[in-house]
Amino acid sequence: MEAFLEEARALLAELVAIPSVSAEGRALREGAAKVAEVLEGLGLRPELHEGYGPPVVFAEGGEGERTLLFYNHYDVQPPDPLELWDTDPFVLAEREGAWWARGAHDDKGELVARVMALRLFQKKHGFLPRVKFVVEGEEEVGSPHLEAYVAEKRDRLKAEAILWEAGGVDAKGRPYLYAGLKGIVALELRARTAAFDLHSSYGAVVENPIYRLSRALASLRDEEGRVLIPGFYAKVRPLTPLEMEVLAEIPDESEALREAFGVRDFLGGARNLDFNQRLYTEPCVNFNGFHAGYGGPGSKTVLPAEARAKLDFRLVPDQDPEEVPELLRRHLEAQGFHDVEVVVLEKGERPARSDLAHPFVALARRALEEAFGEKAVLYPNMAGSGPMHPFLHHLKAPAVGLGVGYPGSRVHSPNEHIRVRDFERGTLALLRLLELFFLGH
Amino acid sequence: MEAFLEEARALLAELVAIPSVSAEGRALREGAAKVAEVLEGLGLRPELHEGYGPPVVFAEGGEGERTLLFYNHYDVQPPDPLELWDTDPFVLAEREGAWWARGAHDDKGELVARVMALRLFQKKHGFLPRVKFVVEGEEEVGSPHLEAYVAEKRDRLKAEAILWEAGGVDAKGRPYLYAGLKGIVALELRARTAAFDLHSSYGAVVENPIYRLSRALASLRDEEGRVLIPGFYAKVRPLTPLEMEVLAEIPDESEALREAFGVRDFLGGARNLDFNQRLYTEPCVNFNGFHAGYGGPGSKTVLPAEARAKLDFRLVPDQDPEEVPELLRRHLEAQGFHDVEVVVLEKGERPARSDLAHPFVALARRALEEAFGEKAVLYPNMAGSGPMHPFLHHLKAPAVGLGVGYPGSRVHSPNEHIRVRDFERGTLALLRLLELFFLGH
Repeated sequence: MEAFLEEARALLAELVAIPSVSAEGRALREGAAKVAEVLEGLGLRPELHEGYGPPVVFAEGGEGERTLLFYNHYDVQPPDPLELWDTDPFVLAEREGAWWARGAHDDKGELVARVMALRLFQKKHGFLPRVKFVVEGEEEVGSPHLEAYVAEKRDRLKAEAILWEAGGVDAKGRPYLYAGLKGIVALELRARTAAFDLHSSYGAVVENPIYRLSRALASLRDEEGRVLIPGFYAKVRPLTPLEMEVLAEIPDESEALREAFGVRDFLGGARNLDFNQRLYTEPCVNFNGFHAGYGGPGSKTVLPAEARAKLDFRLVPDQDPEEVPELLRRHLEAQGFHDVEVVVLEKGERPARSDLAHPFVALARRALEEAFGEKAVLYPNMAGSGPMHPFLHHLKAPAVGLGVGYPGSRVHSPNEHIRVRDFERGTLALLRLLELFFLGH
Repeated sequence: MEAFLEEARALLAELVAIPSVSAEGRALREGAAKVAEVLEGLGLRPELHEGYGPPVVFAEGGEGERTLLFYNHYDVQPPDPLELWDTDPFVLAEREGAWWARGAHDDKGELVARVMALRLFQKKHGFLPRVKFVVEGEEEVGSPHLEAYVAEKRDRLKAEAILWEAGGVDAKGRPYLYAGLKGIVALELRARTAAFDLHSSYGAVVENPIYRLSRALASLRDEEGRVLIPGFYAKVRPLTPLEMEVLAEIPDESEALREAFGVRDFLGGARNLDFNQRLYTEPCVNFNGFHAGYGGPGSKTVLPAEARAKLDFRLVPDQDPEEVPELLRRHLEAQGFHDVEVVVLEKGERPARSDLAHPFVALARRALEEAFGEKAVLYPNMAGSGPMHPFLHHLKAPAVGLGVGYPGSRVHSPNEHIRVRDFERGTLALLRLLELFFLGH
């Protein structure tokens, strides 16, 4: 086992050394080339698919009657703020039983676990199973080209099941897997009330854009978090009895999260099943930022001309991110906010959820449970978003996520890391999944 | 007349060359010393009064049965943004019939006009009339020590009438004067909902501080601008018939302002008397800034932990700036905003309005009308604020403002200036006022 971990560490070190930051358009070709090289070394035939933003690394090969498709990405979040890192974000560090670097978990660590699981399978069973890889380079900037890519390459990507990019153990160390992701659409609201900033003494007669935007935002949800935009919930697909059952099995982490986050209470006092249902299977609106006027020290008697707020909507099946801006516009108009403009910041991602009754979900859960020797937690959806929908839609196959992280992995933050023990067990779970999928035992 | 303007220009050039920016604590002693030197040159006895922030320049002298007190200040606003100035803000420039520099109007140009009016009086009538000067050095940062100063020096400051710091002609070129200023109190509201920023996917269960603060701000006023804080209007003194009459005489500038500001309409559709009443004699709340979360390009899926807004209340007699924060706190508590903190940014200034029936008001108006040869507009209050209250309160004397500016003077902005013609006529109006006050004709 020592040798396997040493091999994994070396591979991860090579990958994290490439600063493939998609938000900055940095080292993306280099990242793609390195991934192609690694997959080729595994015995797959890699191709760089151009024309969809940074190259998409596609690879296929191996033997078997069925195909398993891996979705991963080689781009990472910016390392800022650099001063909060204990070590160089682009040099793999090993300490305290963990591997530290930008991308150590998201998503280079996950990619290495898959490569290592395939190497272990090959060594143990004498052949490479029939797998495909899609490793994109702009997941961290919202995968703007992936929907078109999957639609156009659907025949090349064809597979019976999809392994999604991440996962691991929860705060109590229990392994978990998930079968869906929320959709998202990111917008900006802009209120403008005058041609230029005025002295605040004119506030007696001139409208204030902060007031207008505050009222517009306040009109979007109620005190318990329910969205008040007419039609917003129209396409929400009711949970099936199986989905409700799975949701009810998720342990109640609300009190631990409440303490960790330092919040007084959750919206609507949600706990237990209500908490899990809201977090994992209900849509919501969230305000990411609000900026207007003076923000420096002390006071300034200014009446700003404009105020801007950024918000995102998290969506669940079968809501459509392309419909939300129009519903929002209609709502604002109906409420008299003619002075508030709606700007779509990102095209958005559709919500996705695999059929929980599909045998692949049970198979992945079994693999996890056998590798960890304990019950695994299944999430019908995660609270977050990702480009899972085009895969489910075009390949007509289920997707499940499991991986090598834990809640303290500091994904997107300084000092990102994975614990070696999580990596080891996560990789063995992947190996077990390959065996169950390709060998049937 | 050429010689008089040349003398004024030279004096103003000396004063604006001192970058006495109070917000930056810059060159304030130098500014005070120069003012003392100028007043001494006039034949007054200057003193630097210490212990009230930057030195207050006090000066007295001259002959007469009554005393006229001039209030001015030697500090200026920061010149930023420097790149928007056509010439060096601290070097007086003359072009297009105007004098350009930081402080050219506010308040060094006004001070020079007074000095020149006194020189002209002396030359014409052979003696210096009995005047006092209070020239402070922190007007641009809210005059935090002036109330204590006036209270403690009330005997030294004793005068029958006070000439306030600024004024000039309105957009149509009509001379105006004013008899009061609104009060002000500047506050910050802070909403905090979690210990640190979270990923926005938690917005499904965790409260958002932007939502809380938006709702809190929206609760402070109605759509027409009326403040909804219980007790806010309790101490507003009703306008007297004379004040209403004076207000009704103010020309309706609302349409010109609406066009200049690029606003659709004024709050409550106010025009004419309603407009003037709101702008000059009604209190209001104004939002100066709102800052929370992400404000950069594109989107960021963050749920911020805190949101902050700055606001100011403009007050009218007899509202008390010290009571407003407590009324606000009680209102927020009653509305359930236990998570919103009220922070007082500046102690504030009390509203002030002189008795419009006092003969000095009529005398100042007559001086203006004689110098300009046309009807002068009298404002019971200006929309802005200033430290007039302690003078009215402790000296039991009326204060009136008139001066040498115009609406395009760009006070507090790049390319501040006064037109030489306005300076000339404004100074002659001051001379006429001195004659009417001291000679009775």
